[in-house]
Amino acid sequence: MNKVAIIGVGHTKFGRLQGKNILDLLCEASLEAIDNSNTGDKEFDSVYVGAMSPGVLNHMTGIASALVDRIGLIPAAADHIKNGPASGGSAIKAGFLAIASGVNDLVLVVGGEKMTHITTPGFITSNVATITHHQAERRHGVSLPSFAGLLTRAYLEKYEAKLEWISEIAIKNHKNGALNPIAHFQKTIDEFMKSAIQKGKGQWNDVNEFLRDDKTNPIIADPLRLFHVCPISDGAAAVVLCNAEIAKNYCDTPVLITGVGQATDTHIVHEREDVTVLNALRNCSNQAYKMANKTPQDIDVAELHDAFEILEVIESEDIGFFKKGEGARAAHEGLTEIGGKIPINPSGGLKARGHPLGATGVAQVVELFWQLRGEAGKRQVEGAKTGITCNFGGFGNSIVSILVERM
Amino acid sequence: MNKVAIIGVGHTKFGRLQGKNILDLLCEASLEAIDNSNTGDKEFDSVYVGAMSPGVLNHMTGIASALVDRIGLIPAAADHIKNGPASGGSAIKAGFLAIASGVNDLVLVVGGEKMTHITTPGFITSNVATITHHQAERRHGVSLPSFAGLLTRAYLEKYEAKLEWISEIAIKNHKNGALNPIAHFQKTIDEFMKSAIQKGKGQWNDVNEFLRDDKTNPIIADPLRLFHVCPISDGAAAVVLCNAEIAKNYCDTPVLITGVGQATDTHIVHEREDVTVLNALRNCSNQAYKMANKTPQDIDVAELHDAFEILEVIESEDIGFFKKGEGARAAHEGLTEIGGKIPINPSGGLKARGHPLGATGVAQVVELFWQLRGEAGKRQVEGAKTGITCNFGGFGNSIVSILVERM
Repeated sequence: MNKVAIIGVGHTKFGRLQGKNILDLLCEASLEAIDNSNTGDKEFDSVYVGAMSPGVLNHMTGIASALVDRIGLIPAAADHIKNGPASGGSAIKAGFLAIASGVNDLVLVVGGEKMTHITTPGFITSNVATITHHQAERRHGVSLPSFAGLLTRAYLEKYEAKLEWISEIAIKNHKNGALNPIAHFQKTIDEFMKSAIQKGKGQWNDVNEFLRDDKTNPIIADPLRLFHVCPISDGAAAVVLCNAEIAKNYCDTPVLITGVGQATDTHIVHEREDVTVLNALRNCSNQAYKMANKTPQDIDVAELHDAFEILEVIESEDIGFFKKGEGARAAHEGLTEIGGKIPINPSGGLKARGHPLGATGVAQVVELFWQLRGEAGKRQVEGAKTGITCNFGGFGNSIVSILVERM
Repeated sequence: MNKVAIIGVGHTKFGRLQGKNILDLLCEASLEAIDNSNTGDKEFDSVYVGAMSPGVLNHMTGIASALVDRIGLIPAAADHIKNGPASGGSAIKAGFLAIASGVNDLVLVVGGEKMTHITTPGFITSNVATITHHQAERRHGVSLPSFAGLLTRAYLEKYEAKLEWISEIAIKNHKNGALNPIAHFQKTIDEFMKSAIQKGKGQWNDVNEFLRDDKTNPIIADPLRLFHVCPISDGAAAVVLCNAEIAKNYCDTPVLITGVGQATDTHIVHEREDVTVLNALRNCSNQAYKMANKTPQDIDVAELHDAFEILEVIESEDIGFFKKGEGARAAHEGLTEIGGKIPINPSGGLKARGHPLGATGVAQVVELFWQLRGEAGKRQVEGAKTGITCNFGGFGNSIVSILVERM
């Protein structure tokens, strides 16, 4: 199996990006990654695009081959990889396999989504809910936020954790996002509070009080409130992958993808023995650790899929950083902060960097690329040599993990 | 690079399949393939699903992970591969890469589409047209049939070919389809004519006269008529792939995938130097020939993408069987019939077997599997040892070729 290196990355700002369509965003991230990888004069073998719903949200199919034309990579092969909100992770895996097999030497992977132009209330949530089970879940009105609310309740009860600890993860991720110039939200929650006070929206003694206010932080799916939930965002992120043998021709400090894992769990959430366990993550992270010959203790930094802040807790357990039931307390004790035992989501995570569905899995790897090369600025995890991702598709029924290391 | 074998196949009937949804069809083909491959007690590593538009046509996303659960393959990785009407070919390529890389040993690939429940006139054609270029094509009302009409006119004029020769391809493919028990249409055009006569719809002296009748064979996109165009179909097809080293544990006569190619051409059709040339096919078939160390002269049987009968002509040239401009005459002379120099579409092709978009690329490989194992019944190409496919995405801007051989 050929070794696979990342030799360049691109990343649009995430957020409400008006006047740009999905292809514009994919182009922007792709061209930046190609430029960053010094491969501008090379022939690419393949392009993989991760996106969840461009057919429904943007009335565009065939976006991968359209992109190849627009950025001048004809005749490179072009495929669109779909795995719900884990489409980006799956696209990276596809690019990895193309090079690992020896069939390709140079591959572009880009994930993106354009969502904020949809203004019909509930349309996005309903569209994402098409990944739930039709008969058992969706026709009863279940959505991903409602699942996350139920999961939060189940977790808090089973492990005697506090909702405040979950809120503290949002506080941490906004703090990290404030240090990330491409994040959707670059403001701490403290700053959100001060801004609300200035605008005369209310008066609060501290952030915890602000976060308990039904007006500024309304309930989305009890007990989850607005600040427990990631935003709807536009954006794209890209990586250039190549056979590690030729990586140093392009780049002094490539990053290796040494582990890749992906696994499936039951489609119907209530069929799982314990809903607070993500079996798919246990399986896929174990695949990634095994391929890379690493353990969770070897990981210096992680990008997890906190579409809802409860997920960061559960993922931090099932990916092997903390024992079951101890993730929320570990976060409360600061172990997942930058500078803590295992920094999680230094980028700001989905909560603050934002969540343009198909972009997220690629953006996670881009953040780790920066972290491992010491290029993460004020949010740098010092000395980070090894990182892992969790990219979550469906409601935990399809999960991808990518493990990266300094070359 | 590990060698990749096909050890079992499944194929639903193609046609108007009422009372079954997209997942039902994927399940049916998948379970048949697993049964056929004697792997029922084995753990699959990955499942790849090729489908063009289940999000829009069936309001289902996450179909790959849903399928894995439903057919009992948890925790196998699950991805949905999209490449327009070439989604099936791309899914096979993805499965090939997973095994060729050594990351996977046992993979299920299934392609499918459920379309005939959509009764809104023009909805399917409009949906497929989302793969054309928005600004340059789609907003002017271009659709794939209209492109095919223009292409037919350009070809007939440039190469002094006759429309009757294109019609003869439809006649051949219906003749082949009549020998294929899973084809959408299992009737020769002669039989269609006789049935129309019996129903009192008219009186014709021969098939050519029948095919010139505006009532029974109306113009779809001048000069193309109904019988020059493939139907809208439901169906699914599946293959089980494994590392060739272990293939004989499951199957006495595996078929090897020895060549895989995929290439992109300009998104805007009028930007091509010559619209009668499919550069993407030239590129991708050359990749497949090169990987397999074969030439077009080594091919015994081919499954080409005749969504419109003109495409079979042009593809038969650009895949290397005939010189440019000689494909229509070659078909007229019978060279592409079963028993001819290079039999094309013994299955009946998209015209008669049908075209459930994402299923087609997989169904082509299933037909070649049967042909190479001598299991194609009355449509058997005697002694076939090597076959190739052309699976056409967009309007020629993304094409996949798979080359298979007897082991």
